Amino acid sequence: MSVHASRYELVEVAKGQKPADLFIRGGTVLNVYSGELLKMNVAVCKNRIAYVGESEAAIGEHTRVIEAEGKYVSPGFIETHAHPWVVYNPISMAAKVLPLGTTTVLNDNLFFYLHMGPDGFIRMVEALRDLPGTHLWLARLVSQADFPGEREWFSQEAIRRLLEMDEVVGTAEITRWPLLYEGDPFVIESVEFAKSRGKFSDGHTAGASYEKLNAVVAAGISACHEAITAKEALDRLRLGLWTTLRNSSLRPDLEELIKVINEGKVSTHRLLMTTDGPHPAFIEEEGFVDGIVRKAVRLGLDPITAVQLVTINAATFLKKDEWLGGIAPGRQADILILPDLVDFRPELVIAKGEVVAEGGRLVNPLDHLKLDWQSFMARKPFEFDISVLDDLNRYRFPHTDPNQPVPVIGFRSTVITKTVERLLPSADGYADISGQDDVLHVCLFDRRGNWRTNALISGFADKLEALASTYNTPTELLVFGKNPESMRIAARRVYEMGGGIALVEDGKVILEIPLPITGMMTDSLSFDQAVKYQDELLSAVKARGYPFHDILYTLLFLTCDFLPGLRVVPFGLYDVKSNQILRPAVPLTG
Amino acid sequence: MSVHASRYELVEVAKGQKPADLFIRGGTVLNVYSGELLKMNVAVCKNRIAYVGESEAAIGEHTRVIEAEGKYVSPGFIETHAHPWVVYNPISMAAKVLPLGTTTVLNDNLFFYLHMGPDGFIRMVEALRDLPGTHLWLARLVSQADFPGEREWFSQEAIRRLLEMDEVVGTAEITRWPLLYEGDPFVIESVEFAKSRGKFSDGHTAGASYEKLNAVVAAGISACHEAITAKEALDRLRLGLWTTLRNSSLRPDLEELIKVINEGKVSTHRLLMTTDGPHPAFIEEEGFVDGIVRKAVRLGLDPITAVQLVTINAATFLKKDEWLGGIAPGRQADILILPDLVDFRPELVIAKGEVVAEGGRLVNPLDHLKLDWQSFMARKPFEFDISVLDDLNRYRFPHTDPNQPVPVIGFRSTVITKTVERLLPSADGYADISGQDDVLHVCLFDRRGNWRTNALISGFADKLEALASTYNTPTELLVFGKNPESMRIAARRVYEMGGGIALVEDGKVILEIPLPITGMMTDSLSFDQAVKYQDELLSAVKARGYPFHDILYTLLFLTCDFLPGLRVVPFGLYDVKSNQILRPAVPLTG
Repeated sequence: MSVHASRYELVEVAKGQKPADLFIRGGTVLNVYSGELLKMNVAVCKNRIAYVGESEAAIGEHTRVIEAEGKYVSPGFIETHAHPWVVYNPISMAAKVLPLGTTTVLNDNLFFYLHMGPDGFIRMVEALRDLPGTHLWLARLVSQADFPGEREWFSQEAIRRLLEMDEVVGTAEITRWPLLYEGDPFVIESVEFAKSRGKFSDGHTAGASYEKLNAVVAAGISACHEAITAKEALDRLRLGLWTTLRNSSLRPDLEELIKVINEGKVSTHRLLMTTDGPHPAFIEEEGFVDGIVRKAVRLGLDPITAVQLVTINAATFLKKDEWLGGIAPGRQADILILPDLVDFRPELVIAKGEVVAEGGRLVNPLDHLKLDWQSFMARKPFEFDISVLDDLNRYRFPHTDPNQPVPVIGFRSTVITKTVERLLPSADGYADISGQDDVLHVCLFDRRGNWRTNALISGFADKLEALASTYNTPTELLVFGKNPESMRIAARRVYEMGGGIALVEDGKVILEIPLPITGMMTDSLSFDQAVKYQDELLSAVKARGYPFHDILYTLLFLTCDFLPGLRVVPFGLYDVKSNQILRPAVPLTG
Repeated sequence: MSVHASRYELVEVAKGQKPADLFIRGGTVLNVYSGELLKMNVAVCKNRIAYVGESEAAIGEHTRVIEAEGKYVSPGFIETHAHPWVVYNPISMAAKVLPLGTTTVLNDNLFFYLHMGPDGFIRMVEALRDLPGTHLWLARLVSQADFPGEREWFSQEAIRRLLEMDEVVGTAEITRWPLLYEGDPFVIESVEFAKSRGKFSDGHTAGASYEKLNAVVAAGISACHEAITAKEALDRLRLGLWTTLRNSSLRPDLEELIKVINEGKVSTHRLLMTTDGPHPAFIEEEGFVDGIVRKAVRLGLDPITAVQLVTINAATFLKKDEWLGGIAPGRQADILILPDLVDFRPELVIAKGEVVAEGGRLVNPLDHLKLDWQSFMARKPFEFDISVLDDLNRYRFPHTDPNQPVPVIGFRSTVITKTVERLLPSADGYADISGQDDVLHVCLFDRRGNWRTNALISGFADKLEALASTYNTPTELLVFGKNPESMRIAARRVYEMGGGIALVEDGKVILEIPLPITGMMTDSLSFDQAVKYQDELLSAVKARGYPFHDILYTLLFLTCDFLPGLRVVPFGLYDVKSNQILRPAVPLTG
């Protein structure tokens, strides 16, 4: 772990009276303050930059000199909106993205908090202090999908404890932004509390009109990353929000969004960029913040502005611009050596003054971070007996009158669904889908053992025998299938793994992905493991008729309550647009 | 006083479900976030903006509608570096500058703290909460000129108490920047404490080379306003400082400094502008922040950028950009209606949601702010008996050997002096200046009664009989004169007034300026009074040979220890460059 340099030491190194630990010689510094490229040396003392200029006085006998002649010296990139739980975990994500130059991440705490509660989450954040790079957190005020007991779990006292932590720099996006629009007191008071501590409130205003945005901004959000058109980005910027241009695996919208800069004449000082939790393969192929910078420059943005968006702008948004986001005395030494301003692939990555990556690889493995994740958890993976999964009727959709159409969840795209009314035969009080090629049963089991929601789904993966997964927004046990017996086998396998994904064919588990961290994340330290799991899962479901490109986000959002369409949520089968529960959840063992 | 709008109220007004208190219709908003001019309505609820857009739904029966068709709607201006003690006081300064559109000021607390200590200062800040506009403070860590007991007066405990106040947003400039360069522990720890509270540290690095600046930045300053060339401004910007372009009465340098923007291609998001405590007549003639914006635009800066520098940039520097510096929902309603973007003279000024000025005049007089200033003071104006002033030898410069040259303070400009070696006759052990047209005695009396410093001065005002003034950096009793008896009369008059300035001719007081607030400020609520005093004083000294344009700054800085030349300071006759006391101070009654 890096050692903290005092200002006294920095002053001495700046004067050349004490040798630097690291000295980067002869590179061209991206000066994000002035927006210039300047050939200058950089002296580092412990975890901080002490000097930027032409002198070499700080080179001592034991100084490590990095020759950067002909190369660029950039501040480390900052991801202001990370979701470190897309099969990968905070450690394997860091292992991947640090070598790509992202030295600071703001992490969403959603699933960690849901499973750990405040105590476990705080212990986890403390345990992650040894992780290289800077790992800051945003605290959710509500879950991504409402569930019984949500308000008790997200108590005001707990939220305030989190917001008092140095690592927790603000409140996280509130995907159910109508809570803000309606002035929900808990949400508003929490936002105010964050502000009183000099912290901010991340926003999420997907689809909000300019008029509605006014009220959501008035309610207190500081930023939004949900614009999907240049016009929407401009609306947000004009209303005083820090406006984050997103290029995620789910919404790779930068080509459109960048027009807000390239085709207008707007000030760029309150624009940011985010990758917003891309799936593992996307990071593998497109990169992380480096990838969005690369794409922005390819789309015509000048390289210095592109880097400003993900360095000094981000740090200023965080109110940490005296600490992060630039190369100047006193700042944390998060520095990239870049061969060019085209690919933005760092040869060398310095985080907190230590060379953490060279040539795209970590210098030191993170084996010391093999954490005991279960020790942070406040909940057991499953709080009901496994035998509950053996009643096959629990997987079936109740249906008695074949003359009454039933609402079926029909997929329109990766994450958007609509209600399809369908006439179906009935057998023993349940829908008989044996003659329907495209329809599957789907069931969401409460892992705490209280309720279940049954539904029918079409256009998901017509040839799927059974799939069970805890990878979903409420992280419950979601089971799909044609065949209740196969669904049972899949569900039991996931139960036995303590969370994860299992695919069953011919009555056998043919693919299993253990996700022991909250049911969402592998505990592997290797990012490649996450990529491999995703590839295997996507291949398997595609082979069985899944027509889209992102199975992880399909699984994640089928159970959320803020995206258009028909959803399987803890309260039942839910139509988001009309805000109606079409079929309420029933007791799990009912 | 304005009433605070809750977010619940703002949300309702934003939705048009509750009427606005104020509604500005049809104006062209200077959107400092996006850098655009946009025709939009603005709805205000109590002290805050609730809505910006095309709707008129928030107009209710009792809403005051301000028609702004054809006019510009700008955020109020922010002065990040004010000295509210240049004969005017914080109230009369506000009375003057609010109608000129400066709705937020960051005030230097120097003389207030010197005379009030922490308790009185805190009580004063509390009493000023009724003053219209937003009045924030910067806490000095040391005085502008060292004095015996300085470190005890500026104790760590006292500084921390101040920095815990909401109104105190940072530490003030440290004019003796070598304290930072040398890593003075008290200064460094105080800077760190401010940062730990999310506050900042204003800097002052006059004349520091780029190399030295590195060490001063490493020591922790956040900003500097002391650049006098575009090159110096660029040096500061490059090193990560918020860089403030100054156009003060003493240093009206904007024409040069603006080149950093106009002749370069630098990013402007970390540039600010300041008037840095102009003398009363300068504000009267040139304006305040409005004046510097006007001048910047006249020098070719585009109007939106010019306004950004003194609004959103300033607010972001303060880490208060979600509260100040722009027109967006949730922000404090500090709004100017401007007829044009040339003169920047507001027709109407709204501060905290109240119309405080129209047509350049305050709407309501500030009579309720007739404060009992003496109640804040920790010190009596003079802590010695008036009879001490009657020993005429105390005004004379000791000198026994006419063959030994004596060091005389020779004025080179308004504030810069140099040492002039001079052979002078001696009489009764003192310098005999009777035959020297250009030489005066000058004596600095400690108002606490401990010491005095004697010196000789030339080129100040050759025909001056006597002048006494507490208007100087340590706010001691500074007496100039040809004639000790006249000096005595001037000194006694200032003593009797409890601080101020008195000019004596033919043995009579012919001009007197009472400055009862710390010896620096009139207690008049009228800014015109300060202008009048300054005019009278300048005319009087000019008529007696004063060759420069700014008597106030000449008086102020003769006694400081950070500007080049020979100075009269509490420790004696001091040569700044060599850091030597040429003649030590002596006991006051010695």
